[in-house]
Amino acid sequence: MNQHRHTQQPLPEPTLRRLPWYLAYIERISAQGVKHVSTTTMSQALNVVPAQIAKDLSMLNLRGRTRIGYSVEAIKHAMTDVLGFHRHHRALIFGAGSLGKALMQDDGLERYGLHIVAAFDSDTKLAGTSFAGTPIFHIDQLPELQRELAADIGILTVPVQHSKQTAELAISHGIRAIWNFTPVKLKCPSHVVVADTSIYADLALIYNGITENAI
Amino acid sequence: MNQHRHTQQPLPEPTLRRLPWYLAYIERISAQGVKHVSTTTMSQALNVVPAQIAKDLSMLNLRGRTRIGYSVEAIKHAMTDVLGFHRHHRALIFGAGSLGKALMQDDGLERYGLHIVAAFDSDTKLAGTSFAGTPIFHIDQLPELQRELAADIGILTVPVQHSKQTAELAISHGIRAIWNFTPVKLKCPSHVVVADTSIYADLALIYNGITENAI
Repeated sequence: MNQHRHTQQPLPEPTLRRLPWYLAYIERISAQGVKHVSTTTMSQALNVVPAQIAKDLSMLNLRGRTRIGYSVEAIKHAMTDVLGFHRHHRALIFGAGSLGKALMQDDGLERYGLHIVAAFDSDTKLAGTSFAGTPIFHIDQLPELQRELAADIGILTVPVQHSKQTAELAISHGIRAIWNFTPVKLKCPSHVVVADTSIYADLALIYNGITENAI
Repeated sequence: MNQHRHTQQPLPEPTLRRLPWYLAYIERISAQGVKHVSTTTMSQALNVVPAQIAKDLSMLNLRGRTRIGYSVEAIKHAMTDVLGFHRHHRALIFGAGSLGKALMQDDGLERYGLHIVAAFDSDTKLAGTSFAGTPIFHIDQLPELQRELAADIGILTVPVQHSKQTAELAISHGIRAIWNFTPVKLKCPSHVVVADTSIYADLALIYNGITENAI
């Protein structure tokens, strides 16, 4: 299942979080016809020290050659592979409210391998409708439908007070990763991956930063 | 300008990132009529150790009383104030594509004090239209319109190759905080706040986590 991975060790989170920066840069210079790149050049563009870049790349089994640098094509291939953006991942949205609909509307996610196959909501008025091509079902239909949908990823966009129970329900029906957009810290079994996208924490950082600078 | 802040010191980012968890919990128990809460009780609900909670709360000048705990009302007030969610913040969207429109569509942001007053795009066909109530203008109109709009926050949802120049343009016209949704690491002047919401990094973490667990 995992034979395309270049490394057996799990990548540390800080490295994983830098890879999309590298990939965005590599795709840009690749489109410009650049064939090789040094960590020094990458460092200037990305504001990450060369030693860190070299270390991150070595974790993908990438090695630079003296005076030539790294192959742009090799970096691109390894990163796309490790990041998993070229594979197809099936996801369900839990909570077809404003944020849930915003994500259904964002077809950029599809380009990054995230295929939203259905949305679930507790509002009976939404059941049977669809939004931006995604069918919306009543949450009670999850057990029956998930047998066929067989989605791995649950995107949690329910109101705060329903976060915990909805996550538990999703996990009990085969969801193995929760993408949590609610401002709640979830406790999940260890086999479940949780990624928090804390939009509100980001907003708080912005508001605080602006205020600090204004003093 | 900053007289409502309970502390003179800037809050460390890890503390700021935990505050929305606390606030979500506090709002829930407050709605249930709970008047006082201990760090032990909070700890069980939030999976953060009591000492850490006490330390975070002390940074907001909140003190618990022996055998009574913290006032739920006082925590709620201090957090809402520090997080800045009750104030009104004016923001512009740069890039009225799929993700930009998704954010215009999400009226949850408004509830957290983020008022998106306009969107800008380089596509002349979009100029003069609007989406979900937000007017869209051509990017060339920014200098003229920003004089009146006077927005502080720029939400960056342009394609990768335009991130850098768009951020620079926004900053040169008075934007003091960039909410960066592009997978690019921005170099900005020190007076500018940058918050990265790395949707693609979160996806990579999820994909990797699922693969690791499947081995």
